[in-house]
Amino acid sequence: MYSAGDVRIENVPDPVIINRTDAVLTITRACICGSDLWPYKSMEASETGRVMGHEAIGVVEAVGADVRTFKAGDLVVMPFAWSDGTCEFCQRGLQTSCLHGGFFGNEEIPGAQAEAVRVPLADGTLYKLPVAKDDALLASLLTLSDVMGTGHHAAVAARVSPGKSVAVVGDGAVGLCGVIAAKRLRAEQIIIMGRHPDRIALARKFGVTDVVSERADEAIERVRKLTGGLGADSVLECVGHEQSTFTALSIARAGGAVGRVGVPQAQTMPAAEETFYNNITIAGGPAPVRAYIAELLPDVLEGRIEPGRVFDRVTNLAAVPDGYRAMDERESIKVMIQP
Amino acid sequence: MYSAGDVRIENVPDPVIINRTDAVLTITRACICGSDLWPYKSMEASETGRVMGHEAIGVVEAVGADVRTFKAGDLVVMPFAWSDGTCEFCQRGLQTSCLHGGFFGNEEIPGAQAEAVRVPLADGTLYKLPVAKDDALLASLLTLSDVMGTGHHAAVAARVSPGKSVAVVGDGAVGLCGVIAAKRLRAEQIIIMGRHPDRIALARKFGVTDVVSERADEAIERVRKLTGGLGADSVLECVGHEQSTFTALSIARAGGAVGRVGVPQAQTMPAAEETFYNNITIAGGPAPVRAYIAELLPDVLEGRIEPGRVFDRVTNLAAVPDGYRAMDERESIKVMIQP
Repeated sequence: MYSAGDVRIENVPDPVIINRTDAVLTITRACICGSDLWPYKSMEASETGRVMGHEAIGVVEAVGADVRTFKAGDLVVMPFAWSDGTCEFCQRGLQTSCLHGGFFGNEEIPGAQAEAVRVPLADGTLYKLPVAKDDALLASLLTLSDVMGTGHHAAVAARVSPGKSVAVVGDGAVGLCGVIAAKRLRAEQIIIMGRHPDRIALARKFGVTDVVSERADEAIERVRKLTGGLGADSVLECVGHEQSTFTALSIARAGGAVGRVGVPQAQTMPAAEETFYNNITIAGGPAPVRAYIAELLPDVLEGRIEPGRVFDRVTNLAAVPDGYRAMDERESIKVMIQP
Repeated sequence: MYSAGDVRIENVPDPVIINRTDAVLTITRACICGSDLWPYKSMEASETGRVMGHEAIGVVEAVGADVRTFKAGDLVVMPFAWSDGTCEFCQRGLQTSCLHGGFFGNEEIPGAQAEAVRVPLADGTLYKLPVAKDDALLASLLTLSDVMGTGHHAAVAARVSPGKSVAVVGDGAVGLCGVIAAKRLRAEQIIIMGRHPDRIALARKFGVTDVVSERADEAIERVRKLTGGLGADSVLECVGHEQSTFTALSIARAGGAVGRVGVPQAQTMPAAEETFYNNITIAGGPAPVRAYIAELLPDVLEGRIEPGRVFDRVTNLAAVPDGYRAMDERESIKVMIQP
């Protein structure tokens, strides 16, 4: 990506092992993230550009001398953040704050919308998958690199638990995975706020009990009505706009929690007073998906959850620019890349 | 209080039982709250005025026909919010969101900086004290009506637990009670941000390990240095200004929590992006002090905590206006009223 709207497919030098803790992967599957649409809308022109992509499944091609856990030929999932797995934050399961880690797909660390990618701190970052590289579950397994882990993080941050009422703000891939996560954590009522028929249909399959298609104040009013006038115990903010954040904070029940995973597009958070008077907890951030893979993987492998259904388009590398366009125009929920 | 800075002592009609669930108390002790200083600074002129005060210990004089728990002569502590004790929120220990409750000291419900007060929903609101009305512990017991419970709420919201590092923003009575609460919950490091020698001296007696007297960015820098570059696990925001909130959010460690109990003076919360990227939890609000009395009372009765030391001035009703002035000018930490 060279600037907003300008995505090009180019030949670049092959990634190689630079540090002894690196691995190089051949990409089996990658995808375009909702968060990639923020630079797609607003990125300033860059001469060098940015190799996008932070979600992937790949085959290990080479490892540095200090990599102990992986060897050439392993099929692995690559979380969107790389992390050492040993620092104070990694030990607490907050790999996105790793003292020695970082994120894929920026100007420093080239991303995974490519044929291959260099993975720093491979031992702490990657997770080996117990399937073949053409397994039918690959789409669902790919979501463990970001979107399913992110939906789960929203649900955990919003303290979803059995019997609770949950509202999900946003019907994108993360919101839909938030529905899966809420259902998986045995929420009783799951309300989604959205109005795209195809997304809503999928949300219903994932376990949504109520759909709110109104906007702004009317939407807030509807959620209150659906929750006995009290608001939802748990709210998943899966967009990041100031307006969606305001909605999320406004539909939370007193004493409830909002888990935010939509990348915030404003410097301030609204409703500082209302959330205070209602003792609402605001939590969340970039999901430490690496920490969640072990928990979510069995449910994917045994078919209890099917987050791969959020992919409604598969493309090769050449068609990635059109994939961005399709997601940006909400023609597609999420695009999978098969290089 | 008739307007900002205009506090008068006047004769008003004696409170009487209005509803069958009311009690009327004769006030034994009351006090001026840091939050009373917000209207003292900014209240618009009112013809009828507002009977201030929401913290009290009193003797039950009369009860309505439906009051079951209390009888004339009982010594009780009156939390700053009245609550039915039975609704969904009260059952969860969030009495400040009681569906049928409210707050003392506004234009609807006259407050306790007075000789007597009417208490709605007495059974759910009041808590009987097992001491005589001239007990030496009365000052500390009075803090269970607000300030000690509020400091405790900040600590609970900020998830203080054994071995954690804690930073307290604000050296007022609530901040000082936050120090007591953090110490009581066995925090290892307790940093207070403040620069008034008398308050800092008291904070040290309460268990503070480090004092940060710098302001703004320098203060943030100091706290980072004191916490190994990482920030504090738990931050107690005990002021409510936008600047103090920014400081609190900025000194929290990734994955940490900020418990806010200072009444917010701005509509928006700063640092929406930083708190997101660091997965910081923001919690707190008006403290459900009624829920905390049973837990804190034994420690007060047995002298393990001495929150009454935040009172550095005792006055009669006639001198209450001067008490407001003294607290507003930070000449006094907190004024106790003995009518």
